[in-house]
Amino acid sequence: MGRALAGALLSAGHRVTVWNRSPGRADDLVGRGAVLAATVEEAVAASPLVIVCVIDYSAVHAIVRPVAETLRGRTLVNLTADSPDRAREAAAWAAAHGIGYLDGSILTPAVSIGTDGAVVIYSGPEEEFAAHRATLAAFGGRADHLGTDPGRAAAFDVAVLDFCWTAVSGYLHALALARTENIRAAELAPYALGIGDLLTHMVPLFAEQVDAGEHPGDQSTVVSLAAGMEHVVEASEARGLDTGVIGAALATARRAIAAGQGRDGISRLVDAV
Amino acid sequence: MGRALAGALLSAGHRVTVWNRSPGRADDLVGRGAVLAATVEEAVAASPLVIVCVIDYSAVHAIVRPVAETLRGRTLVNLTADSPDRAREAAAWAAAHGIGYLDGSILTPAVSIGTDGAVVIYSGPEEEFAAHRATLAAFGGRADHLGTDPGRAAAFDVAVLDFCWTAVSGYLHALALARTENIRAAELAPYALGIGDLLTHMVPLFAEQVDAGEHPGDQSTVVSLAAGMEHVVEASEARGLDTGVIGAALATARRAIAAGQGRDGISRLVDAV
Ligand SMILES: NC(=O)c1ccc[n+]([C@@H]2O[C@H](COP(=O)([O-])OP(=O)(O)OC[C@H]3O[C@@H](n4cnc5c(N)ncnc54)[C@H](OP(=O)(O)O)[C@@H]3O)[C@@H](O)[C@H]2O)c1
Ligand SMILES: NC(=O)c1ccc[n+]([C@@H]2O[C@H](COP(=O)([O-])OP(=O)(O)OC[C@H]3O[C@@H](n4cnc5c(N)ncnc54)[C@H](OP(=O)(O)O)[C@@H]3O)[C@@H](O)[C@H]2O)c1
Repeated sequence: MGRALAGALLSAGHRVTVWNRSPGRADDLVGRGAVLAATVEEAVAASPLVIVCVIDYSAVHAIVRPVAETLRGRTLVNLTADSPDRAREAAAWAAAHGIGYLDGSILTPAVSIGTDGAVVIYSGPEEEFAAHRATLAAFGGRADHLGTDPGRAAAFDVAVLDFCWTAVSGYLHALALARTENIRAAELAPYALGIGDLLTHMVPLFAEQVDAGEHPGDQSTVVSLAAGMEHVVEASEARGLDTGVIGAALATARRAIAAGQGRDGISRLVDAV
Repeated sequence: MGRALAGALLSAGHRVTVWNRSPGRADDLVGRGAVLAATVEEAVAASPLVIVCVIDYSAVHAIVRPVAETLRGRTLVNLTADSPDRAREAAAWAAAHGIGYLDGSILTPAVSIGTDGAVVIYSGPEEEFAAHRATLAAFGGRADHLGTDPGRAAAFDVAVLDFCWTAVSGYLHALALARTENIRAAELAPYALGIGDLLTHMVPLFAEQVDAGEHPGDQSTVVSLAAGMEHVVEASEARGLDTGVIGAALATARRAIAAGQGRDGISRLVDAV
């Protein structure tokens, strides 16, 4: 992701200095005109805007804490993914050292960076975002400032990842289950794509119901959802597959039923998780 | 769903006899010209094609076993959802009683029935499907015959439901997590819709990788997936939310990592579930 970000900045005509723990990974960028810094210190000193995107915030801290004094008076944009609380801690650390700080999250894959498909969200001081938004526009697509609470972008990010990775886990389990029934993934995929369409319909509908606190059961109920999940669990167990994910989802539905919410619509599960 | 199916048959101009355990639920259909049978026996005797769609196969058996002799020589199309093994048992029972049998699953909501959006899949003898496909076309959209193994439609169905309900569980958990961060569902929904687009891209890609048994890690690896899931678990725990579903998904990723597959692409998880 770091390469994609630096590459997009180069493509937009910016002067870019790069540093990566394993220097060889920046060769392409150097070939395209980036300056390779020998140290983090050197990289930070090169620009008023410093962008960091590594594996997690422990790595961020390992990189930036030793150069706090060089960062003072500059802006650090941290595009590394982590939890909202870690984002708030990092912002507090930056504030204590006189470092301008924006916390961001990238919601789309590395290949999207620099294209219309990119989605990057930011939170932190409005004036920091205003000062750098023209540069950050190089990443393409949408660049949304979600608020001044530095944890807000990370909060959106973990929620989006929650949905994304749970869905992906479900799809890969579905392919495994189909395989035990001699159904090739390519045979199942067209029907799975239909579920994508259904999700497109359910996402805004359930959002409305959750915000309203109203969960009408006229289309589909928690009880019918649980019945469907039971078939999946039963079919998976019969073929020796792990049922951890779907079993936990079923447990949630059962909790809702036990709480007297079985005849409510599926979106009621927001209160059972 | 029974009402939607009978309604679509009426709209297509067919003579329809209906029976439901609680007879009042058929009032609308009777108003539209359906004949209300006083008993299952009477309903079965009225037509060469008998369609059953109730909550599960236990209910199906409770309804059809007492009228096996009346069903002899007719075709029973069972559109109730259940596991593949149950579908095969039902087919064997029908064969033993001289009853033509097709097992089907409905992959779209009741409101889709009779519209272009409906998707209904069938399995069982080709000649049964050929004999009734013109009538079944009343349900609209796609009516796919997937093969002669009577459990095949149910096998596709449980796999599709596995994906669908796991994804929906993930979305509702994401909304709950967002809520703990004072993010309204309507604020999160646009980004969740972006994940729908991403799934549309990943579904055929991962299907290809799974069928090929090749899981290139050039875009995103199991290790990076696990790191993302860890942030979700941590953020959920920090807010007192249940982590059953995402925790089980993370456990799958960790099993893959322990098996030396951490640098493989995400689709490798098909072997860890
Ligand atoms: N890839 C995507 O499609 C994608 C999409 C959305 C968000 N993200 C987020 O982007 C961030 C980076 O992901 P990625 O895909 O680029 O991961 P990656 O390919 O695994 O790269 C990890 C980077 O972190 C560096 N790093 C790890 N530990 C370090 C340490 N202790 N000190 C210094 N550097 C360290 C690595 O340096 P070495 O080269 O020396 O190992 C490497 O540059 C993550 O937060 C991820 O969630 C990625
Ligand atoms: N609804 C959807 O959007 C949808 C989508 C795809 C697939 N499906 C599948 O369609 C099937 C029916 O679902 P549904 O939504 O129609 O469920 P539902 O609204 O809960 O209706 C259940 C039906 O089953 C009957 N029933 C239950 N137990 C019975 C028993 N022991 N003996 C006789 N009748 C019994 C009920 O009769 P009473 O009226 O007397 O209770 C009712 O007609 C399920 O397999 C479901 O998975 C539904």
